[in-house]
Amino acid sequence: MHLLLVGLGRMGCGLGARLSRAGHTVTGFDPAPEARLAAEIAGISTAFTLEDLVGSTGAGERRVWVMVPAGTVTEQTVAALADLLGPGDSVVEGGNSDYRDSMRRHDLFAAKGVGMLDVGTSGGVLGAEKGYSLMIGGAEALVEAWRPVFEALAPSPLEGWAHVGPSGAGHFAKMVHNAIEYGLMQAYAEGITLLSSGGNPTVDVAAATRAWRHGSIVSSTLMDLTAGIVAEGGLERVRPYVDDSGHGRLAVETAIERGVAMPVITQSLIARIQSRDQSSLAARLLAAMRGRFGGHAVHKADAL
Amino acid sequence: MHLLLVGLGRMGCGLGARLSRAGHTVTGFDPAPEARLAAEIAGISTAFTLEDLVGSTGAGERRVWVMVPAGTVTEQTVAALADLLGPGDSVVEGGNSDYRDSMRRHDLFAAKGVGMLDVGTSGGVLGAEKGYSLMIGGAEALVEAWRPVFEALAPSPLEGWAHVGPSGAGHFAKMVHNAIEYGLMQAYAEGITLLSSGGNPTVDVAAATRAWRHGSIVSSTLMDLTAGIVAEGGLERVRPYVDDSGHGRLAVETAIERGVAMPVITQSLIARIQSRDQSSLAARLLAAMRGRFGGHAVHKADAL
Repeated sequence: MHLLLVGLGRMGCGLGARLSRAGHTVTGFDPAPEARLAAEIAGISTAFTLEDLVGSTGAGERRVWVMVPAGTVTEQTVAALADLLGPGDSVVEGGNSDYRDSMRRHDLFAAKGVGMLDVGTSGGVLGAEKGYSLMIGGAEALVEAWRPVFEALAPSPLEGWAHVGPSGAGHFAKMVHNAIEYGLMQAYAEGITLLSSGGNPTVDVAAATRAWRHGSIVSSTLMDLTAGIVAEGGLERVRPYVDDSGHGRLAVETAIERGVAMPVITQSLIARIQSRDQSSLAARLLAAMRGRFGGHAVHKADAL
Repeated sequence: MHLLLVGLGRMGCGLGARLSRAGHTVTGFDPAPEARLAAEIAGISTAFTLEDLVGSTGAGERRVWVMVPAGTVTEQTVAALADLLGPGDSVVEGGNSDYRDSMRRHDLFAAKGVGMLDVGTSGGVLGAEKGYSLMIGGAEALVEAWRPVFEALAPSPLEGWAHVGPSGAGHFAKMVHNAIEYGLMQAYAEGITLLSSGGNPTVDVAAATRAWRHGSIVSSTLMDLTAGIVAEGGLERVRPYVDDSGHGRLAVETAIERGVAMPVITQSLIARIQSRDQSSLAARLLAAMRGRFGGHAVHKADAL
């Protein structure tokens, strides 16, 4: 199958390489020349413009996989593609988009006779080798038409990909996937902090996390990754500042809107927000209040 | 190696069967006749009393694996073994004991010249087939002496078991392992609840969790298990009442004592406690307060 790939970043290049290895023809585009160069080195032929990309397949249906950052870039790419594509063509939007945007974009494409699937894509940098997990939203017939692509990208043709519902369901499932990821990460991080807290007995943290990788109930992809980080050491050089890309927030907002209680996932998001709070106004206020009503000692801050 | 196994419940039988298959000689004891019968059926020869068990090896060092419920049963078993064993003998305590008890029991045995290792054993019912994860606390020389046993019980001789520190460290690591497990379980449960909350788009929850099993960042032993539960259905027949076996509480207490913040693990424990609160006095109070100060409608309870 000839696939057109928009976005040749880390994820796009990984996808393209995996598809090429499976025997598909991939032509890629990225506005950044260095991304195009990296893709060429990875064996993916590239086009100089989006117009050239769309023109590169000759006759017949065009299939475009969009793998660009969520938000403005996706919005602009979708608008440009809606102008360039026509009836019979189809688009997979594989980014971390808000599922509501994906539903809207699906309808925008549909008005021009262009099919669209929203595909939540998990697997990160490991995916190119091991395969990606794909959560697919959209029409059954279009999923079937793209089946060879999903079978090639997944860890195996029968595993790791699924049609999870109508338009929007793929990105909704990916949002929930990422929210669960927040909770899992925080649980590992907290446990390992307790394990590292010294006291009696002192635990060899690297040995314990190594043992947990195989046969334990906490064994997981994240456990493997985390045991590697612990074994490597050097966390004192990592600033304790945790970003979030918005999927966790959207999940928490959606849960509150729907009246679904997600205490642990919400708390995981809050822990990230707290990690970025350099001023700690709340902690200063609490310390000052304790001093005022209880006469408890207030630790003096370093001079500014 | 000839091993004496005290406790022929679910975990004990699984361990014994795995050790037998690896070529070790296992003699077991359990006070319950039906447990002894089950063990005999599984190919483990049994003794009628603890005295008979300890006498069954003939001359030489005796090695006893204790796999009985934490608390009173372990305490009594340890006391009885301390009377029966002597210099050169050794005991593995493989249960979910409080690490402080394990340190005390280690010293009790040591006073009689008996070695003891505390071994956190994870893997549940799957362990007999796939192998167990073992976190081992105690003296290096004793760990080496028992090495063939750990290599046979682990998923592979080089994977899934580790000497994690001195006496107590094995059960401390197991406590933290179980605490992490609470957090992971709660994160999956919350995410899947949001996924199941209807609305637009409707997500095929079984399909999504199936896709997450392979290639995704949330893939794990628990994810496999959970996808199976979702696919099977019938959760309406499971009462939403979650027990805890005490390891989570001990972890949270230890963390608070040491000044380690574990918001997500603590919240996971609280979620279990809340699940068991049939009276919901707090929710009744909140509803009544809202009614009193804001005139908000109070939902009337069903008549008792």
